[in-house]
Amino acid sequence: MTIPLRIGLFGCGTVGGGVFQILNSRASFLKTIGVQASIEAICVRSPSKPELVELVKGHNTKITTKYDDILEDNSINCIIELMGGVTDAKDVVFKAIAKNKHVITANKALVASFMPELTDLLQAHPSVRFGYEASVCGGIPIIHTLQSSYSGDVIKEVAGIMNGTTNYMLSKMEKEGASYEAVLKEAQDLGFAEANPSADVDGFDVQAKIAILAKLGFGCVIKPSDIPTTGITRIKAVDFAYAQMMQSTIKLLGVAKRSNPASPNEISVFVSPIVVPVSNVIGTCGGAGNIVSIVSENCVNGAYVGQGAGRFPTANSVVNDIVRLGQELIPSSPFAATQAVTIQNDFSGKFYVRIRISDGLGIIRQVGEEAEKAGISIDSILQLPIQDRSNVDFVVTTDVTQLSKVQIMAKGIESLPFVLEAPLFMPIL
Amino acid sequence: MTIPLRIGLFGCGTVGGGVFQILNSRASFLKTIGVQASIEAICVRSPSKPELVELVKGHNTKITTKYDDILEDNSINCIIELMGGVTDAKDVVFKAIAKNKHVITANKALVASFMPELTDLLQAHPSVRFGYEASVCGGIPIIHTLQSSYSGDVIKEVAGIMNGTTNYMLSKMEKEGASYEAVLKEAQDLGFAEANPSADVDGFDVQAKIAILAKLGFGCVIKPSDIPTTGITRIKAVDFAYAQMMQSTIKLLGVAKRSNPASPNEISVFVSPIVVPVSNVIGTCGGAGNIVSIVSENCVNGAYVGQGAGRFPTANSVVNDIVRLGQELIPSSPFAATQAVTIQNDFSGKFYVRIRISDGLGIIRQVGEEAEKAGISIDSILQLPIQDRSNVDFVVTTDVTQLSKVQIMAKGIESLPFVLEAPLFMPIL
Repeated sequence: MTIPLRIGLFGCGTVGGGVFQILNSRASFLKTIGVQASIEAICVRSPSKPELVELVKGHNTKITTKYDDILEDNSINCIIELMGGVTDAKDVVFKAIAKNKHVITANKALVASFMPELTDLLQAHPSVRFGYEASVCGGIPIIHTLQSSYSGDVIKEVAGIMNGTTNYMLSKMEKEGASYEAVLKEAQDLGFAEANPSADVDGFDVQAKIAILAKLGFGCVIKPSDIPTTGITRIKAVDFAYAQMMQSTIKLLGVAKRSNPASPNEISVFVSPIVVPVSNVIGTCGGAGNIVSIVSENCVNGAYVGQGAGRFPTANSVVNDIVRLGQELIPSSPFAATQAVTIQNDFSGKFYVRIRISDGLGIIRQVGEEAEKAGISIDSILQLPIQDRSNVDFVVTTDVTQLSKVQIMAKGIESLPFVLEAPLFMPIL
Repeated sequence: MTIPLRIGLFGCGTVGGGVFQILNSRASFLKTIGVQASIEAICVRSPSKPELVELVKGHNTKITTKYDDILEDNSINCIIELMGGVTDAKDVVFKAIAKNKHVITANKALVASFMPELTDLLQAHPSVRFGYEASVCGGIPIIHTLQSSYSGDVIKEVAGIMNGTTNYMLSKMEKEGASYEAVLKEAQDLGFAEANPSADVDGFDVQAKIAILAKLGFGCVIKPSDIPTTGITRIKAVDFAYAQMMQSTIKLLGVAKRSNPASPNEISVFVSPIVVPVSNVIGTCGGAGNIVSIVSENCVNGAYVGQGAGRFPTANSVVNDIVRLGQELIPSSPFAATQAVTIQNDFSGKFYVRIRISDGLGIIRQVGEEAEKAGISIDSILQLPIQDRSNVDFVVTTDVTQLSKVQIMAKGIESLPFVLEAPLFMPIL
């Protein structure tokens, strides 16, 4: 009943090799469930790389360096794009759709940046299916779950740990009281973090992922670069000591949520370190793990936990898309319909504000005055035992307020004479 | 492109009412994603119940007390069975399939008990789709996830908290040090537990659910009544004190796993209270929550967390099946293919053994002798401060051993003169 998938693979590194291996090791089982999929051709930059030669040994797979060898081959009815980036990868994906080939991709940047264009192109080519399960949280089927399990529900919040590198670093800082610099170096030595770690530690990786989940959860198209994004570079060991006083920990989250009960179509989308209670399921996700939590009207709360990256978890998501394609179980409209929502990034919540000072008289009064000027009510003031009076951290937590007010308060506090640096602030979950 | 679903609903209590409400409140959105579904007729025992009259007010829904008014109506192409039980519900479901009507059910007992018969009947009626998402863990899309996200993977273990009532009771016992009897009474007073609580506390509810997940995860058909099942009735406050010494808690789990690395097609399926480390994601699931954890070759580990029951979480799962049916996204083979596996219920693991004694001399030696006779190596002996020498609990934990050996050891210990009752034993996760 189903059509055999003759696949062209673009890029064959860690994930591509895993896809090739799974399709071979599971071929006979996949046949029993009606899925016939074979990788007919692979397009790579270095066709003689030993890993690739070893991988395809004994297989009748064509290796090429030319995109058009696959794109112009009418016997190939499906492509898998694992090149990354938004230049050549975009050309390959758009051309494949135009040629009525199904597309499976793990490319979060491409999907996040071009959802409207992809939607239009797919509407013009209604036979084409587009799968992108592997683009967010490698081993967690979160794309498909959002596509298929919340149609009768109204989602209120999607929040997740979607970057394993920074979660590994934060977990290490919490467990060992280690400094940011030390855990970054360790993550780099272990190969978890890049030599230039900016995509991870500055939150840009999560930015693209939450843009995709925001579309699926709320139907809102938001450019990744429009998402207010704060990374973890300013988090210090002392923040974990304060978080512990609050029975909490600190996680880098991508969040998309209805921000105002009185105006249910206002959505806030942001990436930020967040103070998370240890009793919250998000707080229990340590190491390099990923989690996506969904709050909704019908289901109240749900969470999906798993590996966020790695050869076989990510390859498994690509294979899931192949199987769903083979079984015709990919929805014809892969992104949620665009809905009339407004983006409201001046979101509300309780905030954690860490202030570094040289100790003296009248400090609490003056900080209190700045809070009052900004219209913020202070919830608690936390102080660890003081070691060095010339360099003291203390923490103010706020009642529910708006981000813009916290920014005003922080500016005011920064200009006080005894304050040593710009206060660090982040939301409390 | 898709066919409008004209639905006949059997049973319209908590969940059925929720389905009716969601289909109405989300009707216009569902139309935008290609799903037209209307409940044309409802079959109930008491057609004049005020809740039902109120529910259908203003709708053109036929109310009947006769099954055949729906089953013989050729304009109805889909039925939803929410009656429960395996007598009338079985007749209704089997007859509906024979009449080429799609079936959606929340009936775990029916699905767990008749998977081979349903498979045969569905093969004889290939146009019929069969959805049963709501039969296991109300608000968690675990059936669909197992159907669609593990085809390229090899599952090693499925383990879950699948009964909210007992999880609520165990969580209470842990938090408040309350007795089993006290929390049971409280759960009954709150309406969480039935007057006859056996289905929950003796583990029979979980038995049916793990039989379904075992089929989906491993392709093995196992009769619920063949699954070794221990409930929570013998768990005492003191067990939580010992679990805490082990940085653990106690959860009632349904487990299906490959039990022997040397013989990967041997599967163990059982229901039992289990000592779970608090660092394990299963250990963090408290209250009436449900969780299913999946260990697999590609994805390593994943977990799915949510509400296990309740009007809207369960109704949402029924609606998910309606949507997937409307979008033709339900696999034509709803249960995993049967695979050649053997059931090995003499599973291996570490065990927790609590022994109640009247204190005296030579006790550890004699318990040690019984362990040695059974071929069991003891890992640790735990003793809380003794309050009353005539009635002392202590705990022995074992190294990895087999269930049958623990049973032999427990029998031996029970016959020692100073032992007051049969030892309580359970696996350690």
